[in-house]
Amino acid sequence: MAKDLAVVLLLDCYGELLTDRQRDLAELYYNEDLSLSEIAVMHGITRQAVRDSLRHSEQMLHETEQKLGMAARITAMRRCLEGILTAADTGDLPRAAALAKEGLARL
Amino acid sequence: MAKDLAVVLLLDCYGELLTDRQRDLAELYYNEDLSLSEIAVMHGITRQAVRDSLRHSEQMLHETEQKLGMAARITAMRRCLEGILTAADTGDLPRAAALAKEGLARL
Repeated sequence: MAKDLAVVLLLDCYGELLTDRQRDLAELYYNEDLSLSEIAVMHGITRQAVRDSLRHSEQMLHETEQKLGMAARITAMRRCLEGILTAADTGDLPRAAALAKEGLARL
Repeated sequence: MAKDLAVVLLLDCYGELLTDRQRDLAELYYNEDLSLSEIAVMHGITRQAVRDSLRHSEQMLHETEQKLGMAARITAMRRCLEGILTAADTGDLPRAAALAKEGLARL
């Protein structure tokens, strides 16, 4: 089961919509980087049960992103701010202002 | 029934989590600024049914914001970008850079 790193951002955005148990398992896997087997031992459940819960959570997180698009919005905002920082570091005020305007229009 | 203008932002963030009908009524009320009675006539339902639907939707939107905090995040980002724009307009590059760094740390 390959770790889908985009899920880390989705968890940050929508993790609170999962049940406590789903969120707990997903955080151990994605944020604490534990293996399926380690999580299974920790929770006294089978490796397959961990896998099933993660699959279910991922599906819910992706579906919510398809509806709300908050992760995409945050990613765009991160790029915008990084661009502004680069512009400021190189003394390019007009570029910083243009990027800030663009970001505001997109919010 | 006083219009809670914060709901406009919540609708933008989480409107897709409402049913089609709930979203339709809420958009007519908050985005198109129609009255309860106008919406009732339009949909062939009672004014009270419109009011109940709006109350229910608002409650769901507020509860989702309490869990996810995306509207607060967007509001903070808007202030950050407005600050950067002001700093850029007044030639204050260090301030623009500091605000961009702050914004990135908060994302």
